[in-house]
Amino acid sequence: MLNFLNDYEFGCIPEILDQMQAINEEVNLPYGQDPYTKKAKDLLQSKMPGVPVDIHFVYGGTMANLIMVRSCLKSYESIIAVDKAHINLHEASAIETTGHKILVVKNVNGKITPQAIRKAFLSETAIPGHMTFPKAVFITNATEMGTAYTAKELQEIRAICDDYDLFLIMDGSRLGSALVSEGVDYTLEDVARWCDMFVLGGTKYGALFGEAVCISNPKLKSNFHFAVKQSGGLFAKGWLLGIQFIGLFQEDAYYRIAKKELEMAVKLQNLLTELKYPLYIRSTTNQIFVYVTKEEHAYLKQYVLFKDVEVTEYAIAIRFCTSWTTTMEQINQLAIILKQAKQQKKD
Amino acid sequence: MLNFLNDYEFGCIPEILDQMQAINEEVNLPYGQDPYTKKAKDLLQSKMPGVPVDIHFVYGGTMANLIMVRSCLKSYESIIAVDKAHINLHEASAIETTGHKILVVKNVNGKITPQAIRKAFLSETAIPGHMTFPKAVFITNATEMGTAYTAKELQEIRAICDDYDLFLIMDGSRLGSALVSEGVDYTLEDVARWCDMFVLGGTKYGALFGEAVCISNPKLKSNFHFAVKQSGGLFAKGWLLGIQFIGLFQEDAYYRIAKKELEMAVKLQNLLTELKYPLYIRSTTNQIFVYVTKEEHAYLKQYVLFKDVEVTEYAIAIRFCTSWTTTMEQINQLAIILKQAKQQKKD
Amino acid sequence: MLNFLNDYEFGCIPEILDQMQAINEEVNLPYGQDPYTKKAKDLLQSKMPGVPVDIHFVYGGTMANLIMVRSCLKSYESIIAVDKAHINLHEASAIETTGHKILVVKNVNGKITPQAIRKAFLSETAIPGHMTFPKAVFITNATEMGTAYTAKELQEIRAICDDYDLFLIMDGSRLGSALVSEGVDYTLEDVARWCDMFVLGGTKYGALFGEAVCISNPKLKSNFHFAVKQSGGLFAKGWLLGIQFIGLFQEDAYYRIAKKELEMAVKLQNLLTELKYPLYIRSTTNQIFVYVTKEEHAYLKQYVLFKDVEVTEYAIAIRFCTSWTTTMEQINQLAIILKQAKQQKKD
Amino acid sequence: MLNFLNDYEFGCIPEILDQMQAINEEVNLPYGQDPYTKKAKDLLQSKMPGVPVDIHFVYGGTMANLIMVRSCLKSYESIIAVDKAHINLHEASAIETTGHKILVVKNVNGKITPQAIRKAFLSETAIPGHMTFPKAVFITNATEMGTAYTAKELQEIRAICDDYDLFLIMDGSRLGSALVSEGVDYTLEDVARWCDMFVLGGTKYGALFGEAVCISNPKLKSNFHFAVKQSGGLFAKGWLLGIQFIGLFQEDAYYRIAKKELEMAVKLQNLLTELKYPLYIRSTTNQIFVYVTKEEHAYLKQYVLFKDVEVTEYAIAIRFCTSWTTTMEQINQLAIILKQAKQQKKD
Repeated sequence: MLNFLNDYEFGCIPEILDQMQAINEEVNLPYGQDPYTKKAKDLLQSKMPGVPVDIHFVYGGTMANLIMVRSCLKSYESIIAVDKAHINLHEASAIETTGHKILVVKNVNGKITPQAIRKAFLSETAIPGHMTFPKAVFITNATEMGTAYTAKELQEIRAICDDYDLFLIMDGSRLGSALVSEGVDYTLEDVARWCDMFVLGGTKYGALFGEAVCISNPKLKSNFHFAVKQSGGLFAKGWLLGIQFIGLFQEDAYYRIAKKELEMAVKLQNLLTELKYPLYIRSTTNQIFVYVTKEEHAYLKQYVLFKDVEVTEYAIAIRFCTSWTTTMEQINQLAIILKQAKQQKKD
Repeated sequence: MLNFLNDYEFGCIPEILDQMQAINEEVNLPYGQDPYTKKAKDLLQSKMPGVPVDIHFVYGGTMANLIMVRSCLKSYESIIAVDKAHINLHEASAIETTGHKILVVKNVNGKITPQAIRKAFLSETAIPGHMTFPKAVFITNATEMGTAYTAKELQEIRAICDDYDLFLIMDGSRLGSALVSEGVDYTLEDVARWCDMFVLGGTKYGALFGEAVCISNPKLKSNFHFAVKQSGGLFAKGWLLGIQFIGLFQEDAYYRIAKKELEMAVKLQNLLTELKYPLYIRSTTNQIFVYVTKEEHAYLKQYVLFKDVEVTEYAIAIRFCTSWTTTMEQINQLAIILKQAKQQKKD
Repeated sequence: MLNFLNDYEFGCIPEILDQMQAINEEVNLPYGQDPYTKKAKDLLQSKMPGVPVDIHFVYGGTMANLIMVRSCLKSYESIIAVDKAHINLHEASAIETTGHKILVVKNVNGKITPQAIRKAFLSETAIPGHMTFPKAVFITNATEMGTAYTAKELQEIRAICDDYDLFLIMDGSRLGSALVSEGVDYTLEDVARWCDMFVLGGTKYGALFGEAVCISNPKLKSNFHFAVKQSGGLFAKGWLLGIQFIGLFQEDAYYRIAKKELEMAVKLQNLLTELKYPLYIRSTTNQIFVYVTKEEHAYLKQYVLFKDVEVTEYAIAIRFCTSWTTTMEQINQLAIILKQAKQQKKD
Repeated sequence: MLNFLNDYEFGCIPEILDQMQAINEEVNLPYGQDPYTKKAKDLLQSKMPGVPVDIHFVYGGTMANLIMVRSCLKSYESIIAVDKAHINLHEASAIETTGHKILVVKNVNGKITPQAIRKAFLSETAIPGHMTFPKAVFITNATEMGTAYTAKELQEIRAICDDYDLFLIMDGSRLGSALVSEGVDYTLEDVARWCDMFVLGGTKYGALFGEAVCISNPKLKSNFHFAVKQSGGLFAKGWLLGIQFIGLFQEDAYYRIAKKELEMAVKLQNLLTELKYPLYIRSTTNQIFVYVTKEEHAYLKQYVLFKDVEVTEYAIAIRFCTSWTTTMEQINQLAIILKQAKQQKKD
């Protein structure tokens, strides 16, 4: 069975497991008081030297998102996000559990627009005291639809956040894919500069687990660790998180993996276009979306793992996701299956 | 200044204040343990004899809504409601504060449709455990847009709630207006039968305050009073709430008021139509919505209190609301002003 | 049946009901935008001219307490209060519902001590990030045990709050009783100066309902009204709240009532001492606590309404509460019953 | 530096890391849909064959505790636990964040007693609707003070839970230590039979991370996974959790480690007694508590890692914790240091 289901269905890159082996018998203080956590933080900070950030490692993405929201909002404050946002669709109301409302706006190619932010803000502040107080814009980059924000887009969003005194928070569980995406010429440091707080995810780039919450807004730095513990997010053997990020950043495996995932994805998207599979959206990252017919879908299901995204009357939108283990050989195998699927007849 | 702003900008009907006078010096046990509360509950129950309900009086509508949601849902369960729902737009995230997500669907004439419920349910249950568990449909009747559900509509909604094991909860802060609405031939008892829990509001029908939460689903009855107290919703001098509802229901003032509000509203809507004001929506209750131009709006603002609903590029949608104090004379005065407004020139 | 059960089992003082009558047919804007609310705020502010306060009226005490806590704390911050605090014992976890922990310390005569605050603070901050962050001291004045804080005690508590950067919040549902208590020589303005936020309750001094939240700390003023609405605490016909406080403060009925309640209570406590009923605690306000035997208890229950406080092996602690309607005649009647109770034999 | 600080300051037992190596390049479905998770569940179930349990793996203990509470309580329901409970003292109000109050009772040797449960229940239900509704007893076993519940104690607690319809929930982050403790003759299956829900922790027995929530009460089984996801507790690469528990239970490493920890602890406690260090409490598990003088404390701090527990006027209570890596040699080294500490003079 070919696997294009997701980018987190394998263990980790060898350097991480080797390092875990190497220090397995060491004594390390718990809860992130160890030297590996410190080294990992220093490493990450060195990738964005111009913007001092506080870094907190937590084990997963939903956890990171809910802690960020909980840590920076007052009880009546809300966040603006797109309909397709992971926090809106796929976190089982983890955000609402913290008591905060998500003001949902329609995405444009998976992204939020300054216009949508403005409209949501003005509409929600029309009757002060009877509605929530919008206080943050929450974006995902790369988006859930495989697109990446451009520098211009992020700067415009930052500008409107400044206008309305909104925090800009980024869920970067696939931030690496955005940073290497075609047309993206900003850096991690730019992200740290534009956002008040963001997540840099490790799970989808060859770590066993681990997301780094990076806080650049000085007002949001203090006491963040209380919100981590309160949320059940404090890892006992914290050095394990440090080791994940040392593994990803010491030799820039993170970027290499992001690039490789993209390279495979580009080949795959081109292939799909050649084979006349209609794109659901044109992706610039490692998630590729196409429409298939029911017959094609049934055929593909026999040989390939992939994800269903939307079922319409005439077609099914599906997602292929490349990962750090995807090989050219697998792409070639998929190409054969995709061609055969095209030859399936309707009933 | 003519007042068509809302239906709760006056004190109360005389019988309520008289009764408050009459018993002002009596000793009454607090927290609803008094005979007036009991009498009010018996009165309300007598209006829906076929369906045994538990009744709890609380002082306001947002309070009633949040207690209902809190009392019947598990932490990960969500509710389905329309975009225009008061709980979604105008309660400052009171629902989310209880930890529950509102799954928002688009309204059709202010109402939820069975199709929208089905789509929301199926979509939210597509990836079990990664999304919330939809457990209730929350409707407003009369709706925020001045329409009322028909018997057929409510029965269809009930049917789909049965299919998916969803509670049906009704915010009836203007339930009286629905019950007397043209085309509505169901009764309070039908509402009690179709809903698992609903609010019958007093504030908009001539009470000083007070909403009655009526629970017909036996599974939802026990311990509701804990949720009331926990939410800060337990009135110390509880007999005051009882007196409001005795005043509204002993001589059926509630229905008389609802009818009178409607009568005035019908005249007003007809008048607006005659005057060629485009309706924003055709109302069947005491809230009337029309589009006015900016010039008309400016003119009207000088003489009449009303509510702005939506600002579009070319026009402003506004709401006139009739109340139990609205007179034919006021309608006639408004008619004159509306005619004059029509004669305002654009700049 | 004689009634010494509580101080909120009657309607209101006549001036309030008269005023409600007088304006019953007026048009008033809802949600506190009316002139009566403004007048009531101005009146209250005039009682503490040296300390500018923001004032918000809500209808009940538990509601006031939970909004105060919600409005000023971050998710991981906790409050320090005594074991007997109403927020700890009798609010059905309304505070915890907002997500905040109450750090409970033992009361001394119903009061919190600086020593207890210090110990709780130091103990809770011993392992930063693994425990909560104590951020407020929450006191009740008069206390649940009938005592009142002295100026010296409040100043010492303020001092330690300053040391540890803690808010001082006061539940003053019986603040009037504290202000007129023997040995108390501070004023409402002093309370406003020492506290960051406090409640001045009307319900127990002859209002139908209503508590005034007074905020003197400028940092806590903004957006408080969002927390009110979010909690379901915004009164539609807000002018009714204004009228309660105008009634209580325009002619200082509030203080007159507090003094009268105290006068009756002093007589009652003296009487109980003369009759050799052992005091449970020496009260300086309108709540009087004594021990009675089971036989005395059974006898009293036939003729008097009172509250059981604690059942021990040998005796039952009970509370008599005087109210604004308590008369000398009622005290005399109670005296007779208390004497007769003393003559009951054990079985 | 000798380390007796905690039992989770090392990596994992070799069989776990070996297994992680062995399957590192395999494709596994995420979120616990993999064969290792299934195998681990089957293994655990096989250790308590008479009681069918639902098992959910989460990565940490605070997370496990908050999910259990959230999953089984209604909004106004509370839990009874001792003052020293981890959920009360060291989880930064994670439980209160779920909206639930902890009714704190005094511990006896770290344990809750049936008497304390009865008193708390009766006291909290004295004024129904004004207090919370106690619905669960939450115990830690082994306790935070190094003691373990006996079979008789657990049966008595179960009996009172049955009387009052309370769930019995156990935080078993050190359950292994309880099961091998002297005087304990019950099994994992007995625990499953007596509790409605319990945690079996892996972190303190040589796993990298991971706690197994075991649910035996059929009413609490359904939809638990929603609460996991909602809390941010769903592990992406879930098979890693499975591998931890396979490693601990396939060859019963869990029990071997628990026994070895205990063996070292017994030696240590005997040694301390011989050296005349006064015990803070007599431990029957791997946590040993003694009083040391300030001088002894200062001396020990130079050579040994341990934990301060309580500072009194005359002494400091400290904890030594043995772990699966503790050797006889380390105990002997500690013995020497402890003897030397005894010879320190007071200043």
